[in-house]
Amino acid sequence: MEDGVDHLAFERNKAQFDVDEMKIVWAGSREDFELSDRISRLVASDPVFKKDDRVMLDRKELFKNTLRKAAYAWKRIIELRLNEREASKLRSFVDQPAFTDLHWGMFVPAIQGQGTDEQQHKWLPPAYKMKIIGCYAQTELGHGSNVQGLETTATFDPKTDEFIIHSPTLTSSKWWPGGLGKISTHGVVYARLITDGQDHGVHGFIVQLRSLDDHHPLPGITIGDIGMKFGNGAYNSMDNGLLRFDHVRIPRNQMLMRVSQVTREGKFVHSNVPRQLVYGTMVNVRQKIVSDASVALSRAVCIATRYSAVRRQFGSHNGGQETQVIDYKTQQARLFPLLASAYAFRIAGEWLKWLYTDVTERLQANDFSTLPEAHACTAGLKSLTTSATADAIEECRKLCGGHGYLCSSGLPELFAVYVPACTYEGDNTVLLLQVARHLMKTISQLGSGNKPVGTTAYMTRLDQLMQYHSDVKKAEDWLKPNVVLEAFEARAARLSVACAQNLSKFTNPEEGFQELAADLADAAVAHCQLIVVSKFIEKLQKDIPGKGVRQQLEVLCSIYALFLLRKHLGDFLSTGCINPKQGSLASEQLRYLYSQVRPNAIALVDAFNYTDHYLGSILGRYDGNVYPKLYEEAWKDPLNDSVVPDGFKEYVQPMLKQQLRNARL
Amino acid sequence: MEDGVDHLAFERNKAQFDVDEMKIVWAGSREDFELSDRISRLVASDPVFKKDDRVMLDRKELFKNTLRKAAYAWKRIIELRLNEREASKLRSFVDQPAFTDLHWGMFVPAIQGQGTDEQQHKWLPPAYKMKIIGCYAQTELGHGSNVQGLETTATFDPKTDEFIIHSPTLTSSKWWPGGLGKISTHGVVYARLITDGQDHGVHGFIVQLRSLDDHHPLPGITIGDIGMKFGNGAYNSMDNGLLRFDHVRIPRNQMLMRVSQVTREGKFVHSNVPRQLVYGTMVNVRQKIVSDASVALSRAVCIATRYSAVRRQFGSHNGGQETQVIDYKTQQARLFPLLASAYAFRIAGEWLKWLYTDVTERLQANDFSTLPEAHACTAGLKSLTTSATADAIEECRKLCGGHGYLCSSGLPELFAVYVPACTYEGDNTVLLLQVARHLMKTISQLGSGNKPVGTTAYMTRLDQLMQYHSDVKKAEDWLKPNVVLEAFEARAARLSVACAQNLSKFTNPEEGFQELAADLADAAVAHCQLIVVSKFIEKLQKDIPGKGVRQQLEVLCSIYALFLLRKHLGDFLSTGCINPKQGSLASEQLRYLYSQVRPNAIALVDAFNYTDHYLGSILGRYDGNVYPKLYEEAWKDPLNDSVVPDGFKEYVQPMLKQQLRNARL
Repeated sequence: MEDGVDHLAFERNKAQFDVDEMKIVWAGSREDFELSDRISRLVASDPVFKKDDRVMLDRKELFKNTLRKAAYAWKRIIELRLNEREASKLRSFVDQPAFTDLHWGMFVPAIQGQGTDEQQHKWLPPAYKMKIIGCYAQTELGHGSNVQGLETTATFDPKTDEFIIHSPTLTSSKWWPGGLGKISTHGVVYARLITDGQDHGVHGFIVQLRSLDDHHPLPGITIGDIGMKFGNGAYNSMDNGLLRFDHVRIPRNQMLMRVSQVTREGKFVHSNVPRQLVYGTMVNVRQKIVSDASVALSRAVCIATRYSAVRRQFGSHNGGQETQVIDYKTQQARLFPLLASAYAFRIAGEWLKWLYTDVTERLQANDFSTLPEAHACTAGLKSLTTSATADAIEECRKLCGGHGYLCSSGLPELFAVYVPACTYEGDNTVLLLQVARHLMKTISQLGSGNKPVGTTAYMTRLDQLMQYHSDVKKAEDWLKPNVVLEAFEARAARLSVACAQNLSKFTNPEEGFQELAADLADAAVAHCQLIVVSKFIEKLQKDIPGKGVRQQLEVLCSIYALFLLRKHLGDFLSTGCINPKQGSLASEQLRYLYSQVRPNAIALVDAFNYTDHYLGSILGRYDGNVYPKLYEEAWKDPLNDSVVPDGFKEYVQPMLKQQLRNARL
Repeated sequence: MEDGVDHLAFERNKAQFDVDEMKIVWAGSREDFELSDRISRLVASDPVFKKDDRVMLDRKELFKNTLRKAAYAWKRIIELRLNEREASKLRSFVDQPAFTDLHWGMFVPAIQGQGTDEQQHKWLPPAYKMKIIGCYAQTELGHGSNVQGLETTATFDPKTDEFIIHSPTLTSSKWWPGGLGKISTHGVVYARLITDGQDHGVHGFIVQLRSLDDHHPLPGITIGDIGMKFGNGAYNSMDNGLLRFDHVRIPRNQMLMRVSQVTREGKFVHSNVPRQLVYGTMVNVRQKIVSDASVALSRAVCIATRYSAVRRQFGSHNGGQETQVIDYKTQQARLFPLLASAYAFRIAGEWLKWLYTDVTERLQANDFSTLPEAHACTAGLKSLTTSATADAIEECRKLCGGHGYLCSSGLPELFAVYVPACTYEGDNTVLLLQVARHLMKTISQLGSGNKPVGTTAYMTRLDQLMQYHSDVKKAEDWLKPNVVLEAFEARAARLSVACAQNLSKFTNPEEGFQELAADLADAAVAHCQLIVVSKFIEKLQKDIPGKGVRQQLEVLCSIYALFLLRKHLGDFLSTGCINPKQGSLASEQLRYLYSQVRPNAIALVDAFNYTDHYLGSILGRYDGNVYPKLYEEAWKDPLNDSVVPDGFKEYVQPMLKQQLRNARL
């Protein structure tokens, strides 16, 4: 292999569709494509943003390097007069978790969403200019999922018109907030509001944490970094922190008061701003997570697909070349469903973005009718897509054989940096149970005229779905969108109904919910998978440009659905939605679909339009020039700085020379 | 929480069995228990073997630390006059991958197994004394799974009576061998043997790699470390290496000649030593991997179980304590099957050890009849247990919530150090297909009087199994060993038969095998799961001491089997082995079994008898004193050395002071 040659050109030539058109589909619009394309190239071409050495840096060096990148990124944002959207793109292509993520992603939005106009006026301008840097201090050592169980207190002192922020126990120490450990000057701190001895639950407070002069923590405040996290590089570039308060006083007007207030007299009052706004924020944060899942998944799939085309193993006849790994059916059966999932999650994320806009508009018109359904569906898709993506990245790593274990494959770091998404912003199991609660409620209200809306609308056809039997007779029948959709609807509906029936046998419904939690989670998964499948199908029924692109997406949509059907065959069979013969026809069709993807696989991952910098993987290089570059990269390891390694003389030589007994160890 | 108090005592008091008896069962025998107990305490109490700081060391420091531990371990082994078994235990409890693993685990056994008596005489004494240190250089940059595709050549030169070892291409560079990168003085190098222009396939050669004087690579030899691997600490303590030969000459007698020889004249001849011996070695290596899987899995399960009892979240009423996470059914439904799997794999590993002894005895008596079956079954169990364990460690990490992401939980490192087991010594998918080939062959020979043996013996009852319908009528029926066993046998048999039938439709059998590979892999999994279930049941039918212990194991055995049944419900239903109603009775029984494990959970993980040193996890501490220790540990991170971090002045202060434009970045 040589430099400057496209070793995958022969693969690219096989594609049966226009990859440039697919790039637009993936990006969402031509404008989105051009934005990402421009900013990603900008980042990739700038030596400051180099990242291939970061797995070798120790914690302090890595952190310093992150500060440099964050500052330089901000400088470039100012110099190039980037707008908010461009700036955010730039940060994401720098691809290194940093305190700025929390400042822009959590601190600023918290003030925007929960601050009064006055508070926004005061705090947002310095935050926009980064004259102050903020974090989001919610989670505690003893409490993550259960926000209402937080222990930090904010006690109103009417004498001085102040709140006293305090950490009453060790477990009340704030723990995990990103940017807190070493950098943030301020934080939005969540604490139990106490006025006149009464606990009003958890509220947010703006608290200055460090001096703007010498950066030391202010009196009464203890801050530190919580230590090393999973993986080389990965989130170790972030100063996730711990924080303790010893009776720290802040002025009353630093409680975020858009929804509730404490008056000068210490009275706790609600404003007329609907509290449901909080759910609107959650919908927003989680729709971003779904969109991020499609990005992380597509990066892993891009690496595994390209390397599967480069790598050859077995099957050589008469001294010819061996078989490309991507031609093995087992490889296809593991890889192509993940490729299909990346596209499916992308489309689901796009739809959620629309959903958020829709919910926001309705909220502004005081229409809360769709909020519970939108909230449940975003929670469910967050859970479904992040769990699937975490597993898929590791699967892609395994699909690269031994070399996937090298950091230079990019996959270890991608995995380590991604997996927290399964836990933050709602533990995935907890979220599924929230979805299940919504489903049970929807079913219980069916008789009462409360019509199911949005993604639960199929429940209106419950009687029909309970009677459903698939009429698939031959493998190709599984290509019909309606055939697939009905099977998924019937399965989801029946699993929910079965749970509802089993729940009704318990005299204490809450006890029943706990006891049947595993089945309820399964029902929630079935519902969420139905959503993804149906949004993919909807997408195909509109705005797809060329015929080639449409055909590819149809194939991927069928693969995604039939792969799930095969994976959850027990659901489909036990609920009687399909019979065993129909299940095996689905497997047959799936094999045929894989062979249709095969010639298009490389072009389908090219459509993600990732730069080699962003991918950060030698195995996933665009030009396929893998082995020479792996070899080159190996020599950069610090252990190769010297022929005889540090420690050899003291420890190994005495072994070889049989002088170990006397060696000082 | 305080020091010196057992915060989990209230959990330990709930146990309904004698934990000391279970410790013996887990260890295999009283003698094994005492050995492990003694050596693990020895290691735990020695400050040189401290490992809690290693995730913070950079590559060079970590490597130097490993050399120190390896040399010190060897010194202690000599001082304490430990025998081979004790020495090997000691190395495993040091729990840090090192070059010595390959020296003792691969280099020495390769010479023992493939060397002539003369060669063993020459090379083993210095190897036993560590006067030379060896590695096992097989895998190449371009070839892992396909050993027969290796490219390195060993060409016989009759003029000088030497072999010329050469790396003809970049992809022929040896790549991955542990201990090679910086330490090994010698290696067993696999290369294509060429005599008189004829290629005789891949053979092993003893090659000196480095000078015993100055440790520099010998002329014509290029060696380096291949670079950083997945995870903090983990396998980065190992110098996996790359190696290239430029026409390096070695004497003819350094080819390992037990099975084949090259004569002085350059003639290639086979000895009368049966070549099947190679398979015997594979059986041995892989049975160890299965046993290691149970260790890795049990460590993760121990951590997750203890922390699930410590951690409380939600469910507080009237200010009382919140619910222990282990009391949630969703937590139980995810955790307890893994606990059951740890015991199941332990028992399977123990049985494989017996199988290896049996095969070895038969080989010595020239009885090769059981070898193919033993080989297939070890390959299959290696694949099954390592895949399940890798997934389970990550699942245990998720079961610990956010804190599982901290290195101090021990889980990130456990995962990163474990996952290569899915790839080395046979890629898990490749191995499943080998099992499938054996199954297809077994079925095809059924008519010919070739009676299936060992773990395939159930195939003799194929007619009966094809007629089988489970007669389960109530949930408790699923507790009967025979009921479970027959269902698993019928499922495995029918999946295999279905594959065989589908294969027969292809005119080219090899093409059919490729096309149906995914189904074949499923059939192999079903067969392997049957083996594990049946060995667990067999174990219960003999040598279990007390009634309490037996009852616990019965519960775990049922959980393992019914969890698999639920997971692969699609198999059981589509093959008609059970009906949907019976499937839901299994789920019901499973829930009941979980509630039986609950009071015994802590004692069941105590029975593994791991020291806190070996577990290496604050979340899994024996005393449950988690939060104060997490807090203490956090402060040890290098970032906490100073209040204001390195880089703040250069990069962050100019942002805060709005002087970024002029800052030099």
